[in-house]
Amino acid sequence: MTSTTSRISAPHLSALDELSKALGTQGSGSLLVDDVDVQNFHRDMGALSDPHLPMAVVLAGSTEDVQATLRWASKHKISIVPRGAGTGVSGAAHAIKDCVVLSLERMNQILEIRPDDEVAVVQPGVVNADLNAAVAEYGLMYAPDPASYQQSTIGGNVATNAGGLRCAKYGVTRDSVLGLTVVLADGSIIEIGKQTFKGVAGYDLTSLVIGSEGTLGIVVKATVRLRYSGENQRAIAAIFPDIETAAEGVLAIGRARVQPAILEMLDEGVMAVIDSIHGTKLKGTGGALLLALTDGFGAYLEEDVIREVLAGLGATLFEKDDPQSMALLAMRRVSRGDEQDDQYRVGEDVAVPRSKLVDYIRELHRIAERNNVWVRTVAHAGDGNLHPTFWIDPSEGEAGVERLDASLDESIRAALAIGGTITGEHGVGQYKLRWLGWEQSEQVRELQYRIKEVFDPQGILNPHKAI
Amino acid sequence: MTSTTSRISAPHLSALDELSKALGTQGSGSLLVDDVDVQNFHRDMGALSDPHLPMAVVLAGSTEDVQATLRWASKHKISIVPRGAGTGVSGAAHAIKDCVVLSLERMNQILEIRPDDEVAVVQPGVVNADLNAAVAEYGLMYAPDPASYQQSTIGGNVATNAGGLRCAKYGVTRDSVLGLTVVLADGSIIEIGKQTFKGVAGYDLTSLVIGSEGTLGIVVKATVRLRYSGENQRAIAAIFPDIETAAEGVLAIGRARVQPAILEMLDEGVMAVIDSIHGTKLKGTGGALLLALTDGFGAYLEEDVIREVLAGLGATLFEKDDPQSMALLAMRRVSRGDEQDDQYRVGEDVAVPRSKLVDYIRELHRIAERNNVWVRTVAHAGDGNLHPTFWIDPSEGEAGVERLDASLDESIRAALAIGGTITGEHGVGQYKLRWLGWEQSEQVRELQYRIKEVFDPQGILNPHKAI
Repeated sequence: MTSTTSRISAPHLSALDELSKALGTQGSGSLLVDDVDVQNFHRDMGALSDPHLPMAVVLAGSTEDVQATLRWASKHKISIVPRGAGTGVSGAAHAIKDCVVLSLERMNQILEIRPDDEVAVVQPGVVNADLNAAVAEYGLMYAPDPASYQQSTIGGNVATNAGGLRCAKYGVTRDSVLGLTVVLADGSIIEIGKQTFKGVAGYDLTSLVIGSEGTLGIVVKATVRLRYSGENQRAIAAIFPDIETAAEGVLAIGRARVQPAILEMLDEGVMAVIDSIHGTKLKGTGGALLLALTDGFGAYLEEDVIREVLAGLGATLFEKDDPQSMALLAMRRVSRGDEQDDQYRVGEDVAVPRSKLVDYIRELHRIAERNNVWVRTVAHAGDGNLHPTFWIDPSEGEAGVERLDASLDESIRAALAIGGTITGEHGVGQYKLRWLGWEQSEQVRELQYRIKEVFDPQGILNPHKAI
Repeated sequence: MTSTTSRISAPHLSALDELSKALGTQGSGSLLVDDVDVQNFHRDMGALSDPHLPMAVVLAGSTEDVQATLRWASKHKISIVPRGAGTGVSGAAHAIKDCVVLSLERMNQILEIRPDDEVAVVQPGVVNADLNAAVAEYGLMYAPDPASYQQSTIGGNVATNAGGLRCAKYGVTRDSVLGLTVVLADGSIIEIGKQTFKGVAGYDLTSLVIGSEGTLGIVVKATVRLRYSGENQRAIAAIFPDIETAAEGVLAIGRARVQPAILEMLDEGVMAVIDSIHGTKLKGTGGALLLALTDGFGAYLEEDVIREVLAGLGATLFEKDDPQSMALLAMRRVSRGDEQDDQYRVGEDVAVPRSKLVDYIRELHRIAERNNVWVRTVAHAGDGNLHPTFWIDPSEGEAGVERLDASLDESIRAALAIGGTITGEHGVGQYKLRWLGWEQSEQVRELQYRIKEVFDPQGILNPHKAI
């Protein structure tokens, strides 16, 4: 073990030496301690207010590595911050003081694909897009598709209960995970959930672990359900004069009882971002863009109904079969995935009841105006899940940051006031802890602390995150 | 309070007097103590080996009644057995010694229907079919449809995470519940989950309570997600020479990447039961019947694909548009719902990976033959969820019961050996506790006991059930 660092105390250095030997015995894992090396693992893509370098990073290559690391951490009472690809946007993978980061990225094997059972069994480090590529030949897909799907791992998706575009029709990560193998804080290993589509034996520990951001245990294997990848994909793009009418379009599609696979709404600001990244000329064509995808055996009929409904509201539709519609959907997919929030620009993630989309978007604009900040909004509109981005000019400094923070707080309050949630799909992580008490009562939070104690009595697993 | 009974001890009588007064103050709840009255609430439809009469039955009319009952039960350390319509088939609502049964049936108000949000808010005693009738005018449905849907309540469905026929496409109860209001053992009240389609704030306590059979808390309000009731329902009925080929048909439909809303498989024995109840003439036409329903915009195309696939396997199909196909589906729906298991006839509820359906059905027949018992099987085949019924002639007495029990045990072992579960949708209740340790490790069970302690430290909520 080499170290060029003075970040680590002598007792911790000695403990790390023990961990290095334990991992060395197995031969599959590595330990990084050099400043330069650990720097790459000290944060995810969420806003960061209290940066720390981890003492070390474990690159786990096997379940045994994970067990050895947690046994060691329990013995020395050292905090473990688990990590997939680090694409999370709420700071769940931000390093904390004197922690060891446990990276699962090397555990990237697809262990089984069983097409007739419509399941796959994967290690946590398998990249979402790689799993989808592997099952595509069977006409199957792994449905959850967060914007980060080309980088993010199934383990990270499970830890955050990742959503995405397709969950309008196919549900979130929790709806696609059947069973998990989990290493607990003491290094022991449990199997929870099932290998079958249905199963109600005992409490649903699987759903409990999904979305717990690594605070209850480390997922080392997941059995996931695959869905049929509808071949008849039909994209619909519609320009609206304003975002309010676009939001009406979302409800109108619902009233026509059509369930598109994807239903995204972009305001003028996001249209301009897409122009700047992809060279399109959306800006000036209207005040909002609605993008829908239908799939499966009903795709063509559903396309017709959606087109008729939106035209009736005064939308300007791209021609049928115009490849631009599908291209715009692809652009939308990545239009936030490559950004990293900072103190001057923060993307939010509230969800509201669908009928409140219009009211909420109006309120966002009032909030931005009142605080003299900018806002643009993209929404997984089919789910009522909005991603407003608030930002200021960095040159404004601290005064601007205060107004930005006030806007964020007000936008969260406004969502809660109409029955919404502080986080539709990004998770609480570290960044949104300050708002969790606005949504959940003290008693509900206390129940969660107590559940964490059941799984992790010493509190070594990703402390001060998620709950 | 009148009592004609000697089943209640003097201290308990005095305690019940206190409860009666507490409920009386509120005016919405009633307390039953007479032998004849409580007899109606002492069991559900599961097999019963250790019958008890409850000391009393609370007919709760309000959330406050539930709170008063639990505060009282906590004070006196008296066990509470919650109950919906009592249609469960695993004994979760069986009374235990010195318990009070808490009936939620009177809390039967649909509090809100919000068609644009596609949600309804209901009290626990709302009957599943009543909710469906109320939302039908909006083109919406509450998807989970257990065989008991005309009697069973949303509260009971939530407590057992009820499945049904439509969950092949639309998921189980857990997939349709967004948020819950729950009274905890100490009488306090919490709100968990969300009012929106997506939401990842903190641990998923909602999924934890769903399926916990009233052991963690009493649900007094549920916000449920509604789905579009596909108007183009197309029923397909296909007779197969044998059950093995019918099971091949299930996989073949999957390989054609068609997701029917319903996909049921009935063997010769169940076909004969339908004949005897409904006067049909299925027996002798073949060895198995496959019933499918497609719905939504793709229904007609999906119907064509399914018909072609099944015909290719040698099935005899009912003519297109023959009303008998839909009639058979309706008969299938109720073909088990009106039965009550006893010691001579037990319906099982395993689930297996879909590719194992054929193997498992063959194994069931080997088991029945080996033990000289009868077996017939109906399956929610799309989910791999089988309901074999094993039975003997009651005149055989104890010797027959031993062979029946051996068959049940062997059928459970066989399901577990191929990656199955002991219960696909009926729940563990009281009856299946003896098998739970075959599926779950001691450590997994211990975690559940500890979680129960967090919610219910005195263990008064439906003790010795579910986990």
